[in-house]
Amino acid sequence: MPCSSPSLSNETIKSHHAFFAQLIGCAYCLSETRDIEKYCQEPRDKFHGRTWLVLRPANTQEISQIMTYAYDHDLSIVPQGGNTGLVGGQIPDQTGGQILLSCERLSEIRSIDPNSNVVIVEAGVVLEQLQKAAEAVQRFFPLSLGAQGSCQIGGNLSTNAGGTGVLAYGNMRDLALGLEVVLPDGRIWNGLRSLRKDNTGYDLKHLFIGAEGTLGIITAASLKLYPAPVSQQVAFAGVDSPHHALDLFNLAQSHAGSILTGFELIPRLGMEFVFKHLDGARDPLSNPHAWYCLLELSANSPALDSGALIEAILTEAFEIGLVEDAALAQNHQQGQDFWRLRHGMSEVQKGEGGSIKHDISVPVSQIPAFLERAIPACIDAIPGCRPVPFGHMGDGNLHFNITQPVNADKAKFLAHWEEINEMVHAIVSEMGGSISAEHGIGTLKRDLLPGVKDPIELQLMRQIKDLLDPKGLMNPNKVLSSDRLV
Amino acid sequence: MPCSSPSLSNETIKSHHAFFAQLIGCAYCLSETRDIEKYCQEPRDKFHGRTWLVLRPANTQEISQIMTYAYDHDLSIVPQGGNTGLVGGQIPDQTGGQILLSCERLSEIRSIDPNSNVVIVEAGVVLEQLQKAAEAVQRFFPLSLGAQGSCQIGGNLSTNAGGTGVLAYGNMRDLALGLEVVLPDGRIWNGLRSLRKDNTGYDLKHLFIGAEGTLGIITAASLKLYPAPVSQQVAFAGVDSPHHALDLFNLAQSHAGSILTGFELIPRLGMEFVFKHLDGARDPLSNPHAWYCLLELSANSPALDSGALIEAILTEAFEIGLVEDAALAQNHQQGQDFWRLRHGMSEVQKGEGGSIKHDISVPVSQIPAFLERAIPACIDAIPGCRPVPFGHMGDGNLHFNITQPVNADKAKFLAHWEEINEMVHAIVSEMGGSISAEHGIGTLKRDLLPGVKDPIELQLMRQIKDLLDPKGLMNPNKVLSSDRLV
Repeated sequence: MPCSSPSLSNETIKSHHAFFAQLIGCAYCLSETRDIEKYCQEPRDKFHGRTWLVLRPANTQEISQIMTYAYDHDLSIVPQGGNTGLVGGQIPDQTGGQILLSCERLSEIRSIDPNSNVVIVEAGVVLEQLQKAAEAVQRFFPLSLGAQGSCQIGGNLSTNAGGTGVLAYGNMRDLALGLEVVLPDGRIWNGLRSLRKDNTGYDLKHLFIGAEGTLGIITAASLKLYPAPVSQQVAFAGVDSPHHALDLFNLAQSHAGSILTGFELIPRLGMEFVFKHLDGARDPLSNPHAWYCLLELSANSPALDSGALIEAILTEAFEIGLVEDAALAQNHQQGQDFWRLRHGMSEVQKGEGGSIKHDISVPVSQIPAFLERAIPACIDAIPGCRPVPFGHMGDGNLHFNITQPVNADKAKFLAHWEEINEMVHAIVSEMGGSISAEHGIGTLKRDLLPGVKDPIELQLMRQIKDLLDPKGLMNPNKVLSSDRLV
Repeated sequence: MPCSSPSLSNETIKSHHAFFAQLIGCAYCLSETRDIEKYCQEPRDKFHGRTWLVLRPANTQEISQIMTYAYDHDLSIVPQGGNTGLVGGQIPDQTGGQILLSCERLSEIRSIDPNSNVVIVEAGVVLEQLQKAAEAVQRFFPLSLGAQGSCQIGGNLSTNAGGTGVLAYGNMRDLALGLEVVLPDGRIWNGLRSLRKDNTGYDLKHLFIGAEGTLGIITAASLKLYPAPVSQQVAFAGVDSPHHALDLFNLAQSHAGSILTGFELIPRLGMEFVFKHLDGARDPLSNPHAWYCLLELSANSPALDSGALIEAILTEAFEIGLVEDAALAQNHQQGQDFWRLRHGMSEVQKGEGGSIKHDISVPVSQIPAFLERAIPACIDAIPGCRPVPFGHMGDGNLHFNITQPVNADKAKFLAHWEEINEMVHAIVSEMGGSISAEHGIGTLKRDLLPGVKDPIELQLMRQIKDLLDPKGLMNPNKVLSSDRLV
């Protein structure tokens, strides 16, 4: 049964539906509940929306025609990629009146040029598919994250995705050379350049990257490729404090420079959760340590002895007392096993009950100070709660998650979500940090933004939104509130 | 004698002058010809302007007050850094009515944090001063270009400067973490974040970077630092064609990855100019070659044997017939000498008469095809002219300069400037390239932009200019024409 929209009459709905069916084909205009359900909720089951229509256009031209029509008829559009976003940016609201536009059928890799290290992909290409296409031409696409088997490039760009490759290769923004975008009024901006250098005016692509679909729909992108690394070294080190973890990071980076491709931080409690809930997980070290660092080096040539380099780093770290113990992966599989401990961190927390989450960043050198303030503050606020801060230390980015006290009531604990968020975000703000390092704003953090953002910056964001989307039809109420009084 | 402005009465000028003198001090409001001359022309002597007032404010607050007053009184402002720009962006027009605002007194390094690899600098800091400040804390600031002894960070950001470090570290845009900007109406946007990851809304800094002062004045920036390389290898290789140069680049990059920090292309004719006009320049190779490549590797640790790596690259290049001959710098001085041959390329062309210049980029793999089309086209158009295309091959960026025929009349040759530009830029555009890879648009290329840019992109640029600078007072007529009919 189709979902109805409160703001549209049945006649109007029929007429719109007929237009879209004629435009992109009836089979690609979904309105039956069983067909649209999966677009209206996301895997973490936190955000649920309603819609009267899911459109699955085949190409940029169709999207342009959809947007022109939507603009002329004041129809709101929510773009969606692989539907893996964590802040609700891709989910329509509860009114049922917003149209969901899925980019999943724009799934072509338009061209790949290993000699220029450039690939042009459409928005609906799945990240893993792009990684494999790069491998097939002896190249490497460095964006890497948990959802890579289902997230799509359009969403990766719209949310400026991060993940584990940021330390050496940057965020998704840094991997983009050019974009093709359909604007809210249907105009197509072809900015699909494949140039490393281009100083011919304002760099507009950065407006759309990270805008979470509120300024237009990214339909294709020209992206950087890299030479494929031929050898990797992965080490797992036990340290006694975040201070020593920071010192180890700086030591490793000063030795390895851009060859240091990963530096992650894990607390002991996180490791205990992993051993308990992740099948086959084993401690690489013989004794427990307060904190753990995962280091990864990647080299492009057999002439670069990354094994000697990581041994030099760890030896110096031992000598100056930074590291208590360390294990070096002896082969590829063992390196994967070390990474699996880190990648399992999100999942295993579910086995311990409710978790209040943050995705924060501070200047890298402030990580220890942040932890020294935020951990005790949480424990003071909810005695017995169990902070499990882990993540991309080399980027200054931690997933500062708090697991409920043992045997506590999950709902009662989660009722503290906003109170704990507010407290942690206040510390982050005082330290010049970000309340959303890599997940974005969506609806989850939209109302927090005015509290942490420079008012002039918010004014500028609002001005740009009004300029590009004067009717407020593009992914309404995401990032910026549609209610001007807020 | 002060320069007069046609649009302002003497009374008005006096009143404005009095306001500014009271605000920033009389000594910092220059209106005598002998004081303002140096701000109205630039070292290449191509652009000359006039102004009735040069303002030298001391800080962001003063700039904000100047801009507020200018906005209220409809006064045009031309911001200027080290005055080394090559496209006239920093020079006032001929009317004498525009006020020049120099950022040179904002010359403080506000903070430097080697543990976070972040430095916060004001707009007037000279690039070389920043490089030295980084060195003093065992860090490296990678932007490197000919004018580094006088160009300033504000200008580097406003023009998204390139140079020789782009291959491994990116353009100036890629080095910026945050900005402080005074908007055309005097509002101060404090976006001075020092975070590696921050997904809290639109990334506004990229609007101002590369906007050549047309959207506001960048007053300070938070910039990335890197661990300092401890060893460098520089090699000079002779190859028979741009095709082999491209293959050598790809070979080197596939071996060295991000350790390959420089890859430059020089034609034989350029080398001959260097030997003739650059004191003490010597050919590193015993026989002449049609083309030369300069390769640089930089390693952070003694544990990485960059010497073995460059030898592996060159050996393989010999074996597969890419390289005819190569010399490896035996010490730091010799490496510097190799680089001096490359850095001398701009200067030595002056010794051969007039030169018609281009600063183009194409996708890296298209460099050979571009040269195969553009060189014969120029020689067809002006028989005897001498193309000297050189530059940052690894970035797909060439300074495609054409030296006049031997003994030709310089003025007569230079009269072909626009005709040759048009022809070369047409080839560039067909290949998806850029007519200004690193120098920007300014006034020099402003009127070329509509011919090469996607019309939607130009519309968007115009919309953003109107949004942020509704009165058109910020660096008028640069990048975009002030005349709406053009």
